Amino acid sequence: MNKIPYRITLEEKELPRYWYNLKAVMKELPPPPLHPATLKPCTPEDLKPVFCEELVKQEMNTTDKYIEIPEKLFDFYRMIRPSPLIRAYNLEKVLDTPAEIYYKFEGTNTSGSHKLNTAAAQVYYAKEAGITSLTTETGAGQWGTAMAMACAYYGIDLIVYMVKVSAEQKPYRKAVIETYGGKVIPSPSNTTEVGRKILEENPGTGGSLGCAISEAIEVALKTKNCRYVLGSVLDHVLLHQSIIGEETRIACEKYGIEPDIIIGCAGGGSNLGGLIAPFIGDRIAGKNKIRFISVEPASCPSLTRGKYAYDFGDTGKTTPLLKMYTLGSGFIPSPNHAGGLRYHGMSPIISKLYHDGYIEACSYEQSKVFEAAVSFARCEGILPAPESSHAVRAAIDEALKCKEAGEKKTIIFGLSGTGYFDLTAYMSYNNGTMTDYIPTDEDLEKGFASLPKVD
Amino acid sequence: MNKIPYRITLEEKELPRYWYNLKAVMKELPPPPLHPATLKPCTPEDLKPVFCEELVKQEMNTTDKYIEIPEKLFDFYRMIRPSPLIRAYNLEKVLDTPAEIYYKFEGTNTSGSHKLNTAAAQVYYAKEAGITSLTTETGAGQWGTAMAMACAYYGIDLIVYMVKVSAEQKPYRKAVIETYGGKVIPSPSNTTEVGRKILEENPGTGGSLGCAISEAIEVALKTKNCRYVLGSVLDHVLLHQSIIGEETRIACEKYGIEPDIIIGCAGGGSNLGGLIAPFIGDRIAGKNKIRFISVEPASCPSLTRGKYAYDFGDTGKTTPLLKMYTLGSGFIPSPNHAGGLRYHGMSPIISKLYHDGYIEACSYEQSKVFEAAVSFARCEGILPAPESSHAVRAAIDEALKCKEAGEKKTIIFGLSGTGYFDLTAYMSYNNGTMTDYIPTDEDLEKGFASLPKVD
Repeated sequence: MNKIPYRITLEEKELPRYWYNLKAVMKELPPPPLHPATLKPCTPEDLKPVFCEELVKQEMNTTDKYIEIPEKLFDFYRMIRPSPLIRAYNLEKVLDTPAEIYYKFEGTNTSGSHKLNTAAAQVYYAKEAGITSLTTETGAGQWGTAMAMACAYYGIDLIVYMVKVSAEQKPYRKAVIETYGGKVIPSPSNTTEVGRKILEENPGTGGSLGCAISEAIEVALKTKNCRYVLGSVLDHVLLHQSIIGEETRIACEKYGIEPDIIIGCAGGGSNLGGLIAPFIGDRIAGKNKIRFISVEPASCPSLTRGKYAYDFGDTGKTTPLLKMYTLGSGFIPSPNHAGGLRYHGMSPIISKLYHDGYIEACSYEQSKVFEAAVSFARCEGILPAPESSHAVRAAIDEALKCKEAGEKKTIIFGLSGTGYFDLTAYMSYNNGTMTDYIPTDEDLEKGFASLPKVD
Repeated sequence: MNKIPYRITLEEKELPRYWYNLKAVMKELPPPPLHPATLKPCTPEDLKPVFCEELVKQEMNTTDKYIEIPEKLFDFYRMIRPSPLIRAYNLEKVLDTPAEIYYKFEGTNTSGSHKLNTAAAQVYYAKEAGITSLTTETGAGQWGTAMAMACAYYGIDLIVYMVKVSAEQKPYRKAVIETYGGKVIPSPSNTTEVGRKILEENPGTGGSLGCAISEAIEVALKTKNCRYVLGSVLDHVLLHQSIIGEETRIACEKYGIEPDIIIGCAGGGSNLGGLIAPFIGDRIAGKNKIRFISVEPASCPSLTRGKYAYDFGDTGKTTPLLKMYTLGSGFIPSPNHAGGLRYHGMSPIISKLYHDGYIEACSYEQSKVFEAAVSFARCEGILPAPESSHAVRAAIDEALKCKEAGEKKTIIFGLSGTGYFDLTAYMSYNNGTMTDYIPTDEDLEKGFASLPKVD
């Protein structure tokens, strides 16, 4: 067996040329999305006005375990991939743990996160379909940046509705998106009917992903040759992100690494879903006994405290209903710094896997998360995104459990992105002004009250 | 021959285990540094109060072509290296040039630049020597971040004097340095004698690297078990940066790439010096005919409009005198956004090589530089640092000359860092408020008037 280097970087010829379709291997499928008016399962025709046709096909595909990555898209992937799988030798030493810790680091591209994997795919398919402009939302700004990069590359116009509180916390994110040619509108805005309505009802709101989604969809539907793209939650997004997991699996096989635990942070669930895809596929087939852990902020606890129910994906209640763990589309999360995890729902695939017991979930308050982030940065060099730092926190805690038990487990976690644009958050942690927030049961009840009556 | 992938990433076992010492192969050495009081060549004893002993040895070493990288330092290097050598397939296509373009990208680490290569080395040697704290200056902030990362890793205290105008343009740089445990003081400051003097004479000054250096040295000399570290200019810094060139050379040999032109931006000269080291060594030995091009801002044109003379490295006139191309230590550069290139002097090694005709030099105004940066970002994905964008500009212009002449040349340039913390500059370019500045001959004469009388 090869001695394990610090950074495992696959060669270009070793890169996967296909995505891994989890739905083709799940024993039970997630319940289908429902049309919001009829409450009947959505047909492809229902989705095509909003999404590109090829993406709709992928969204509905439950049969093909492997889906080929088109050649022209692979040209983009080889520009940004592979991402390194890094052995956390230094963190292991600092923790003095017998555990072996690895992390798959998706932050080496300019967008700073895994989001570019699906942004590139979605923009590629839009280009092939003759679409000339796209709309989307962004929370932390990583998705908006990724979309701007992909749109600049493929020559497509882009409007990004950016959650207002994030736009204020991260003025430079806006600047990056604009440098790549994207147009940024803080949400809620006066540019859409749904935005105006939300502003009227909640004049002081900092916005939410759910609200920004509503605005972006409204514009896509009203604009010629325009479609909407979503950066997480949906099945085709998890499909594209499976390249993370496939690269990880290939690297593990090359170096004989056999994970016992795989950890990812989850907002909409695409980073986690992509990382675990081939591994959980094998678990379902009885080929391994890996523990999968989803980590979320205590301030927005969709898996750990949400309900498994049909719900809208957006605040404006315009999207199809998805069966998922949700806090209710009316839940407005506190301005927690991990903007990318401030979403009321969770990927239907992740929700189903969690419901069926394949995935565990835990949550952390943000000060504990930043504590882990700073320790990690100081020994491993990389400044992690607040979102990714949730996974760092859980990985450290699992490694410390190994230390206590004297067990040598192999832990892999997803370091989904960098915190270079999250310095406001680090500043508040550094100067001691960061506060934690856990919604009360009453807060949650208010969110649940917004759930549609389906069953 | 192997087909050339988009990103060439060496395996850990292929990494160089030594630095390349240019001075051991130069036909004529740069004139020695002079003691500022006696005007006699500095002895090692003169330098030891300021620099660690091992670094002084390296500074004086003119005989060993290869200097081994210590094992414990290599442990740090393998955490952050190799950096990829990237084939600019997309840029070539956009320019429609027959030239083959490659860039060595040093921005994949959190400090965002090549500076970490020498920061790690200097902190390692300090640690080995029992030093407990270090002082330094930073302009753009990349050096300060690199030092903070290395100090966090090796457990050494750090004070960073940050050029005031940069500290104001880049509040987040300060936050990163602090997250890694470094202390940031905007310079000129009231914490040193030299700082107070400069503030008295120039109350509104935005500061300069030269002034920040004076402050950092003063504190190092006054503090027990403390030394000063410099991020560029000096011979041992270029030595550490030769790892960039050695990796590039190994990658070129592996894939049969034979460069005709190698381009780097130059402020103090360490990025350029490191990139070209083994190639210019071969050129001196008559083994190649590569053109080497140094690119600097028109606002701070040390090679293209400076004088080859002995000068102080700092504004406070406390350092040894170095023979270099200089604008005079009294030259205060305009607040050009490429903070890392706002230095009055140039590495003595680069200066000598330029003086002897081995290196060419050119300069650009910043709006032309940002134009190139945005084109590059949109097709190659990476948002370059303003400093590095000078090399991008020159590489694009050389590739366009190839197009005009129908010549298929191979161009390598150094992409020394990312622009993630330079969004203020990109914002001013995006919204059309960026201005260019070229010093008049009178401006330069004022700087030259500050040159010491040596010869």
